[in-house]
Amino acid sequence: MTNLTGENFVGAERRSASQTFSAINPATEEILGPVFYEANNTDITDACAKAEAAFLSYRTTEPETRASFLEAIADNILELGDALLDRAHKETGLPIARLSGERGRTVGQLRMFAAEVRDGAWMDVRIDPAKPDREPLPRPDLRSQKIAIGPVVVFGASNFPLAFSVAGGDTASALAAGCPVIVKGHPAHPGVCELISKAIAEAVQGRGLHEGVFSLLNGVSHELGAALVGDPRIKAVGFTGSQAGGLALSKIAASREEPIPVYAEMSAVNPVILMPDALAHKADDLAHAFVSSLTLGAGQFCTNPGIVFALTGKGLDDFTKAAAGAISGSEAQTMLTPNIRQNYDSGVSELEHESGVELIGRGKNTPSPSSCRPALFSVHANQWLASPKLAQEVFGASSLIVTCDSLDQLKLALNQLEGQLTATVHFTEKDEDAVRFLLPILEEKAGRLIANGWPTGVEVCHAMVHGGPFPATSDGRSTSVGSAAIDRFLRPVCYQDFPSSLLPDATRDGGAQPAVKRVDGQWVLR
Amino acid sequence: MTNLTGENFVGAERRSASQTFSAINPATEEILGPVFYEANNTDITDACAKAEAAFLSYRTTEPETRASFLEAIADNILELGDALLDRAHKETGLPIARLSGERGRTVGQLRMFAAEVRDGAWMDVRIDPAKPDREPLPRPDLRSQKIAIGPVVVFGASNFPLAFSVAGGDTASALAAGCPVIVKGHPAHPGVCELISKAIAEAVQGRGLHEGVFSLLNGVSHELGAALVGDPRIKAVGFTGSQAGGLALSKIAASREEPIPVYAEMSAVNPVILMPDALAHKADDLAHAFVSSLTLGAGQFCTNPGIVFALTGKGLDDFTKAAAGAISGSEAQTMLTPNIRQNYDSGVSELEHESGVELIGRGKNTPSPSSCRPALFSVHANQWLASPKLAQEVFGASSLIVTCDSLDQLKLALNQLEGQLTATVHFTEKDEDAVRFLLPILEEKAGRLIANGWPTGVEVCHAMVHGGPFPATSDGRSTSVGSAAIDRFLRPVCYQDFPSSLLPDATRDGGAQPAVKRVDGQWVLR
Repeated sequence: MTNLTGENFVGAERRSASQTFSAINPATEEILGPVFYEANNTDITDACAKAEAAFLSYRTTEPETRASFLEAIADNILELGDALLDRAHKETGLPIARLSGERGRTVGQLRMFAAEVRDGAWMDVRIDPAKPDREPLPRPDLRSQKIAIGPVVVFGASNFPLAFSVAGGDTASALAAGCPVIVKGHPAHPGVCELISKAIAEAVQGRGLHEGVFSLLNGVSHELGAALVGDPRIKAVGFTGSQAGGLALSKIAASREEPIPVYAEMSAVNPVILMPDALAHKADDLAHAFVSSLTLGAGQFCTNPGIVFALTGKGLDDFTKAAAGAISGSEAQTMLTPNIRQNYDSGVSELEHESGVELIGRGKNTPSPSSCRPALFSVHANQWLASPKLAQEVFGASSLIVTCDSLDQLKLALNQLEGQLTATVHFTEKDEDAVRFLLPILEEKAGRLIANGWPTGVEVCHAMVHGGPFPATSDGRSTSVGSAAIDRFLRPVCYQDFPSSLLPDATRDGGAQPAVKRVDGQWVLR
Repeated sequence: MTNLTGENFVGAERRSASQTFSAINPATEEILGPVFYEANNTDITDACAKAEAAFLSYRTTEPETRASFLEAIADNILELGDALLDRAHKETGLPIARLSGERGRTVGQLRMFAAEVRDGAWMDVRIDPAKPDREPLPRPDLRSQKIAIGPVVVFGASNFPLAFSVAGGDTASALAAGCPVIVKGHPAHPGVCELISKAIAEAVQGRGLHEGVFSLLNGVSHELGAALVGDPRIKAVGFTGSQAGGLALSKIAASREEPIPVYAEMSAVNPVILMPDALAHKADDLAHAFVSSLTLGAGQFCTNPGIVFALTGKGLDDFTKAAAGAISGSEAQTMLTPNIRQNYDSGVSELEHESGVELIGRGKNTPSPSSCRPALFSVHANQWLASPKLAQEVFGASSLIVTCDSLDQLKLALNQLEGQLTATVHFTEKDEDAVRFLLPILEEKAGRLIANGWPTGVEVCHAMVHGGPFPATSDGRSTSVGSAAIDRFLRPVCYQDFPSSLLPDATRDGGAQPAVKRVDGQWVLR
């Protein structure tokens, strides 16, 4: 144990409080020490005041300052060593190897945003020089760039204690943009939150930044999150979690005197479509790969393949049989919290009792606390089309095969889907015309389309879109993974006829050059 | 009269209805023929169904098709000739010269978006090629681009019957993005709406596009707009008008089962700050230029300078005296509607009765219907800071000078302002340090900052930001003027491991080249 204190980080201050809660080891249901302090109203107000106080100095730091700050956070996280992975393992039940990979991803993400800050194209610098002789009126000198939107509140996710929590993608992109961040820590892994917060706080101090650039507030109550989103000093929200949670926060944000954007990544069933010729040639391989994707991390991924569509026939029969076999052989894995396991069990149990839904495979029964028994169901499209609740996510390793009589019925079913994070198609060259027929619907339903792969595994890169139409996210115009995530926390400002001495550096002639900018309509590289 | 029928455009269908309304000439209060038909629920449902039906074919048109479509609209508008300007003059009271300029701007805007569609950088193409040998896992091939968001509803503005109405900036940018558009015509200029709709409908037909790409629905009722924004087939809204109207539509959009973005450009007082040395050297010139900006178009601009801040002293006294003189000599101008004139008169009358507010100049009294008598008031900052309602917009040629005792008080006052479209500063080299002290606040309060100029006159170009923090607009992350406006109607889609034959053209190796794209993190020009 590396000296956890259970305190909140209100800027540079460490504060305890009267209310407490504890972390639970989901694998053993044992209570983990120490107790953690539930942030109170004073903590909330002070963290928001400090974030506001930090905003101007932080948003106007040199890009190099923010880049090296992000790199310092990454270094400090690595310095936490095995203690971080051990604590994360105890709090989440996730295997050490997975957590080690997730740490690499988190650190890589911070470094990618450091590079992105230096790249500078995110500023979207546009310069339209004056045309004093234009008729009938001269054109003024106009220059614009994007600047940080203001203090941001980030809600950590339960299922990515590192990559989508305190120093995860939302925090990294907001800090890169120049926004102070207040994290509402996820109460399922408060020890990890504290360790990572220490890494960030040390980087804030080490780089001489305003203490209000970062705060961590812990709590199990919904009031804490509601109060943060409702605070007038907060200008945007990043969230990864349940649909109920995301919608509740969106509602609070929309009903503020000044409404603010909420980027909530909520839920999806991530349809997988198996085309006939692909099934005819590799039903068995597809079934095993599908079950691997479905059961990865006990199915606790936003991109878990929760629904499969295919046309009836021998190929699908073979696939179903092989998938049922693979599921039956799958080991139970510990879920993140006892509560998530309970919800999983009741979701599966409800599916079992739905008319027309057949259970075709169930994983091994391990009567250990919080373990997830994978489940695979099948239903005919006629029944599925008539039962909207069959399109809802069961968080965990449960999936539903929807059998369709024709390509037209398959198209009808896809059309009925809500917005999704991903849509996957398995096909051969022979299937391509049919895929071309379905593709436009998939483009309108999902943020990422996958050919002959699986939706789990989200690459952190420039072209990634981890977002999608409502209700997969609250704002399908954005991504929460990849370099484009920085754009969520920016707004444009235009400077008309300002002297060079008063312009921000990147808009000035001879100032800092972003990797690309637009001058009089032409794109110019650095 | 060029054969107005008063009918709605439901795609290619022209429909009358049982309810009617009429246009009024604000200069004479005479009723203008013909009667116009109020769109009913069937019209709304059918227009939305047609827009949805048109979406796929329209969003996947070649960029060149959409570009030449926009140019055809521009040509068709010019072909309407003087009949368009005459009708606009009768319906709005705006002078022919102003309307002729506005027509040029409208046509120029359509052509700019045609060029923008061809430029292609708006697609934000990002390509991260596969790395099959990467350890521990290969990287898939990832390619993303932005696509149209879906059918858009546009609410025309009263004060720009051409440039922000049926074929105005919102429509042009949505059509450029690939979104079908349903315009809710402004009832103050229905004849202009019909003429412009004819120009668009002819271009739709002439280019062989789906009829659902454009509809115009007329009406005076709020229910029409509410029903359009509430229709599940609509995916975004563009609006220019009052704060009450914009907030009502935003509320409807946020409470839909699937919330959608609303881009409402609502209201602003557009602060003008006169720095001491500038006042010391050119109080008289500033006063005359200020009154020209204030009274332009009877003050009916979103960027009208409705509030002036300056430090007490001889310079400000000179400015106030000269401005009062210039106001007294200013002619009354016809306002857009009798209702707008009534609201203006009561706004001015309320200011006259506010404690601490002094009337320092009033324009000539012309007892013709709907004419606007410019008004200039003064108040001390102590009083202004204590009366939040003094920061509210009076739509029309009314402005308020707020006198401050110190730069700190001026800063305090600026800090209390709500979000604005613009903020203007007049200064000399000697004032620069003080401007540097204020600039960060202005950046956080407004979308466009103007040095030594006036906020009226919004250039249509690449660097323009006509937007600003709430409540100037409902979404300060966007602009409604300039080429960047296209981004409001787009969302990103990522393609993972798709064969070239199924990729959209711009993401394909060797496909159409946008002016700039990002390949493996590097920016590449066409």
